[in-house]
Amino acid sequence: MKKKVNAAILIIGNEILSGRTQDKNIVFISNWLNSKCGISVKEVRIIPDIEKTIIENVLLLSKKFNYLFTTGGIGPTHDDITAQSISKAFKLKYEFHQEAYGILEKYYGKKKFNDGRKKMAKMPRDAKLIYNPSSAAPGFMTKNVLSLPGVPSILKSMIENCKRYLIKGLKIHSKTVNLYTVESNVAKKLGQIQKRYKKFVEIGSYPFFRLGKIGVAIVTRSTSLSKLKSVNKEIMKLVKLKKNTNFKNLNQIIYFVDINGLYI
Amino acid sequence: MKKKVNAAILIIGNEILSGRTQDKNIVFISNWLNSKCGISVKEVRIIPDIEKTIIENVLLLSKKFNYLFTTGGIGPTHDDITAQSISKAFKLKYEFHQEAYGILEKYYGKKKFNDGRKKMAKMPRDAKLIYNPSSAAPGFMTKNVLSLPGVPSILKSMIENCKRYLIKGLKIHSKTVNLYTVESNVAKKLGQIQKRYKKFVEIGSYPFFRLGKIGVAIVTRSTSLSKLKSVNKEIMKLVKLKKNTNFKNLNQIIYFVDINGLYI
Repeated sequence: MKKKVNAAILIIGNEILSGRTQDKNIVFISNWLNSKCGISVKEVRIIPDIEKTIIENVLLLSKKFNYLFTTGGIGPTHDDITAQSISKAFKLKYEFHQEAYGILEKYYGKKKFNDGRKKMAKMPRDAKLIYNPSSAAPGFMTKNVLSLPGVPSILKSMIENCKRYLIKGLKIHSKTVNLYTVESNVAKKLGQIQKRYKKFVEIGSYPFFRLGKIGVAIVTRSTSLSKLKSVNKEIMKLVKLKKNTNFKNLNQIIYFVDINGLYI
Repeated sequence: MKKKVNAAILIIGNEILSGRTQDKNIVFISNWLNSKCGISVKEVRIIPDIEKTIIENVLLLSKKFNYLFTTGGIGPTHDDITAQSISKAFKLKYEFHQEAYGILEKYYGKKKFNDGRKKMAKMPRDAKLIYNPSSAAPGFMTKNVLSLPGVPSILKSMIENCKRYLIKGLKIHSKTVNLYTVESNVAKKLGQIQKRYKKFVEIGSYPFFRLGKIGVAIVTRSTSLSKLKSVNKEIMKLVKLKKNTNFKNLNQIIYFVDINGLYI
């Protein structure tokens, strides 16, 4: 029987911490794990390119969660130290991976296969490769840790190749009800509903601004579709639809309800 | 004398972890701290709206760094539990803050000041307010922890009001050299330069794609402007500028050097 499976993401890179670069990998990995594998991301950390820090976090997060995804630090330069740090963390030899070496040598040609490029074939002993269809240099899996590059376009091209290594979890269903009202108008009743469904459904409430109107997105998530439906029935009870209400049923079952239709 | 001052950011919110929402606060806070306060962000964590998890992380990060910024979880709904979690973490009473209560009551008017809105005036005892010019509900500072809302536009409007509570650190200077080449062409020499300046300058190397060309951004950061200049002189030695090289001196002193001008 399928069960709940979770993961953490460890973003390794000074450029994200310094604010120079906007991270785009968290949203992508989390959505992919959710929708394709039924795996929930439960924690994300962003840390600098410091060996000691990487080792500590890899050990802690790989123990705490079913899977750990790392991004960044697997390129050819001096600040790319993810592979040797993971080797040290798990006390594994940091050495050339024969298949990875072959892939890279073929990709660059023997003449242009310099030391920097060779470095990308060095991994913790017995790492499993995550193939890279866009720029050859593979990612790798060590124990339950999957290491991917930081460049979002390359990471995206590789993610499907992680699937073979992952156990699928229970699908997480999600439904969003968008109300044109303010959070504090629904706070009390929502809190009561959440209390009753505490164990089964996660209810989040997020303010938004759209087309000059203030609204609240009420996002419900659960591995049980029937519980999710019950909760959303209760949420919809808070709402009285007017005749001329703008009501839409989209992909994810999203309702737009005018503020005037809301009774609390 | 000014010294190095650091900070961590704790993003509290299921919506960021699930991939539903793209975080924009990390880049903004980090850049602001860097440029306006000379404070470096050294770690970021994204965690769910779970009291125990918030308490653990607040205690750990507030101890490890000079300042901790939290975002999210200070609104009116049941999933907004940052204020009570921080109260518990520091064993402080969670109670109405008189000034915050007054601000909110005035903003909403007595009649519309319902329980959800009143909740936004509850804080850890003796919290210092971070005023909110856009939607009234203040953030607050408890010990060295500054709590801000998750909505980026509101957070942005409040950030200047954090300044009075922060000790300024040494300014971090940064210079970026953009080369049209590939990382592995510069990896070896860059590593040698980094080794020599290990204690003073942080050198990062980040691939980019621009106008169909592949390039590497070499980002150097240091609190010493002279050391930064020396390092960049060495980096520029790796580059031979051609007559018709596209050379630009922009705000942050950015050079664009054609791949043909690069000798390694």
